Amino acid sequence: MTQELIKDIAVTSPDKIVMLVLDGLGGLPDLNTGKTELETARIPNFDALAVQSICGLSDPIAPGITPGSGPGHLALFGYDPVKYEIGRGALEAVGIDIELRAGDVAARGNFCTVDDKGIITDRRAGRITTEKSNELCKLLDGMKIGGVDIKVYPVREHRFVVVFRGEKLDAGLTESDPSRTGVAPLDILITNPEAVKMAKIANVFVATAKDILEKHHPANMILLRGFAKRPHIPSMPEIYKLNPLAIAVYPMYRGLARLVGMTVAQTGTTLADEFKTLKDNYDNYDFFFLHVKWTDTAGEDGDFARKVKVLEDVDAALPQLTALKPEVLVITGDHSTPAAYGGHSWHPVPVMICSQFCRKDAVTKFSEQAFLAGGLGKISATQIMPLALANARKLTKFGA
Amino acid sequence: MTQELIKDIAVTSPDKIVMLVLDGLGGLPDLNTGKTELETARIPNFDALAVQSICGLSDPIAPGITPGSGPGHLALFGYDPVKYEIGRGALEAVGIDIELRAGDVAARGNFCTVDDKGIITDRRAGRITTEKSNELCKLLDGMKIGGVDIKVYPVREHRFVVVFRGEKLDAGLTESDPSRTGVAPLDILITNPEAVKMAKIANVFVATAKDILEKHHPANMILLRGFAKRPHIPSMPEIYKLNPLAIAVYPMYRGLARLVGMTVAQTGTTLADEFKTLKDNYDNYDFFFLHVKWTDTAGEDGDFARKVKVLEDVDAALPQLTALKPEVLVITGDHSTPAAYGGHSWHPVPVMICSQFCRKDAVTKFSEQAFLAGGLGKISATQIMPLALANARKLTKFGA
Repeated sequence: MTQELIKDIAVTSPDKIVMLVLDGLGGLPDLNTGKTELETARIPNFDALAVQSICGLSDPIAPGITPGSGPGHLALFGYDPVKYEIGRGALEAVGIDIELRAGDVAARGNFCTVDDKGIITDRRAGRITTEKSNELCKLLDGMKIGGVDIKVYPVREHRFVVVFRGEKLDAGLTESDPSRTGVAPLDILITNPEAVKMAKIANVFVATAKDILEKHHPANMILLRGFAKRPHIPSMPEIYKLNPLAIAVYPMYRGLARLVGMTVAQTGTTLADEFKTLKDNYDNYDFFFLHVKWTDTAGEDGDFARKVKVLEDVDAALPQLTALKPEVLVITGDHSTPAAYGGHSWHPVPVMICSQFCRKDAVTKFSEQAFLAGGLGKISATQIMPLALANARKLTKFGA
Repeated sequence: MTQELIKDIAVTSPDKIVMLVLDGLGGLPDLNTGKTELETARIPNFDALAVQSICGLSDPIAPGITPGSGPGHLALFGYDPVKYEIGRGALEAVGIDIELRAGDVAARGNFCTVDDKGIITDRRAGRITTEKSNELCKLLDGMKIGGVDIKVYPVREHRFVVVFRGEKLDAGLTESDPSRTGVAPLDILITNPEAVKMAKIANVFVATAKDILEKHHPANMILLRGFAKRPHIPSMPEIYKLNPLAIAVYPMYRGLARLVGMTVAQTGTTLADEFKTLKDNYDNYDFFFLHVKWTDTAGEDGDFARKVKVLEDVDAALPQLTALKPEVLVITGDHSTPAAYGGHSWHPVPVMICSQFCRKDAVTKFSEQAFLAGGLGKISATQIMPLALANARKLTKFGA
C-alpha cells in the first residue's frame, strides 16, 4: 500500500542510497557462549556505523514466516512479497541469470530414469554430473515446436531450465512430475483455458525429449514442473524514480534485481570485486544494491565461526564503502540464517539506516540484542525502502 | 493473511507446543503500591522462564479494542477475530458446551414478563432463579415444528439457548427482543430471503411458548435474539496440520476450542486437575491449549490480592508443566483484566515463547513493564501462533 503512495510522491534527488545486504544476516546465540554471530565478531566499523544510525529489526514477511531468497529480496526492495510471488520456473531461470522476456514461459526440469514400460524408477537420474547434464541439455536445446523456440539451460546435476518463447503462451499448466517413483510421468494438462497451445507444445517437447534420450540411461527421460512467466512487477525506476544498480556475485540475486528493473553490473567473484565495482560505478547511479552472499552460506552450513569470519571480512572492507560518503547507507539482510539453526529462519533481521536525517538512537553495537532498543523498533522489511528514500529526500509530502 | 500463507507451508514435526493461557493476564498498577498484579506476585518460576524466553506484549484485536472471550481466543489460535466473528446465539451455545452441528441455528433467549395486552413489563422476568428457569426450559424443550427439532437449554437465571435443527435453516433473522419495555415483542422478520422457513418456525415457536408459559407469571413470555449458525472456521488440523488438545475447566473455552477443531479433554475443576490432564495426554497430541480461568474472574471482581494469589498458585504448579519439556512453551493471556479496572480491557497482554530457537532477550521478569524491552516487541495476538509453529519447526520456507 505504501508503495502505491510512493509512486505519486517519489522525486529525483542528487542523494545516493547504498543498500548493503548481508544475506542471512540475523543469527542465534551459540550454545556455549550465549552470543550470536554478530555479538561474537569483532566488527568495529559496523559498530561505529550503528552509533551514527537509526537501528532496528525487520520481519521479512511476517512473524514466524521464513522467506526464501525471492520474497526476502522483494521485500527489501519495497515490494509486497506475497502479492508479487515469483513462480518456480521463473525463479530458476532468474537463478541462472537467464533474462526472461515478458511472454516467455519457463519450467524447472529434471532428468529422470524410466524403465522399459515408462515407469519412473529415479526422479533424479542418479544425480548425474553437471558435465553430463550439460551434454544432454545440448541435445534438447534449440527445438522449434509449433512456432515456439525452446531453449534448455543446464543448472546443476540433474536440474535444468526450459524456456518456451513464442506467441500467446500461457503458464497455466500442471506438472509432468508425479513427485514419486513407480508411476509414469504425467501428461501436462491445462489449469487455464488459455494454456491449450502451451500444453500441446510442452507435451510434444517431453515426447521428443524421451525419444532423444532413449539411449542415455539413467537420464532417459525428463520431468517438468513450475511452469511460470516472469511476474509483472512494476520497476524501481517507474515507482521510485531511481536509477538503480545491482552488484551481486551470484546469479539468483542479479536475476531478482533485473526483475525489479535494476541495471546489473559486471563484477567479479569476491567481496573486493564487489566493492570495487561499487566505486567504479558510483557516479552513474543513485541507488546501489550490494549483495554479500557468504554470510548466508556459512549459516546454511551451520558454520558459526565462518559466519563470524565473513562478518569480520565485510567489516574490514566497509571503510571503502563509507569513503564514498553515500547520503543514505542501509545495512541489513534479506532474512536470518543462524548457524545454530542451519538454514533460513523467521527471526527478525537487524537493519540500520545512516543518514544526516536518520534521527539516530542510543545504539552503539551492531547486534540483534542491541538493535531491540533501536529507534526503528520492529518494522516490516517492506518499510525499509520508503525510509531509505525519505532519508535521501526522494519523497515529497503526502497531501497538502 | 498470514494464516492463508501458513496453510501452504505447514508441515508436521515431532515437536510439541504447549500454549498456557492465563485468562485476563495483563493488569494495571495498584493505586497504593504502583505495582501490577504480576509485579506484586512472587512468581520465581515464571521469572525463570522469562530468562529463557523471547518476551513481548500482544494486542488481542487492535490498540484500544477490548475483546470478549471469543475474539480473544480466536486471535490466540491464529484466526483473524474480526473475519471469524461468532454470532451471539452460537457463542451462547458454545458457552454451555452444546455441540452445534453445521446446519443448526442457535438463538439467545430471555424469559420476560408481559401484561394482559402483551406489552413487555420486564425483559428479564424479575431475574427468576436458575432452578425456576430449568423447570420452564423443560416445558419448552423438545418441540418439533415444520420438521425442525427445537432444543431449549437453560443458561443462568432468565437466560437460555434455543437450538433449531433441521433442513435448510438460515440464520438471517431479526430479533423478537425490542430491547425496551412498554412495547410488545417484535415479530421475527427475515434479513435474508433464504430465511423464510426459519422465520416461520421461530415465530411459531415464540407463539407456542407464549401459550405454554401463560400461567407462569412473571416468566410468561420469551424474547429471542442473536440468531446464528456455527461459524465456518477452517480447523487447526486443516490449517496447521496439528493434532491439538484443549484442556479447560469452563465450557465456554472448551466450546471455542471445539469450534477450531481441537479435541477437548475430560478434566476436573482445579488447576491441579488441568495439569494432570496435560501430563496424562502428553504423548498423544502435538499442541496443547491449557486454559486457566481464575486470573480473569479475580480481575473481573476487582480483587487484586486474589489475582496475585492465582498467579502464585499457577507459578507453583508450573514445574509440573516444564518437567514435560515441551519444545515450545507459550505463556500468555487472551486479554487483560486488570483488577484496578474490574473487567476485560484493551491493554496489551504479556506473551513469552520459550524454545531452543526463540532468540531469547535480556528480560528477567514476567511483567508488563519488563516485557516492554522484550525481543518480540509489540505484536498482534494472531502472530503468536505462527511464531509458535516456526519455533516448533512446523513451517517450511515461503518462496524459493
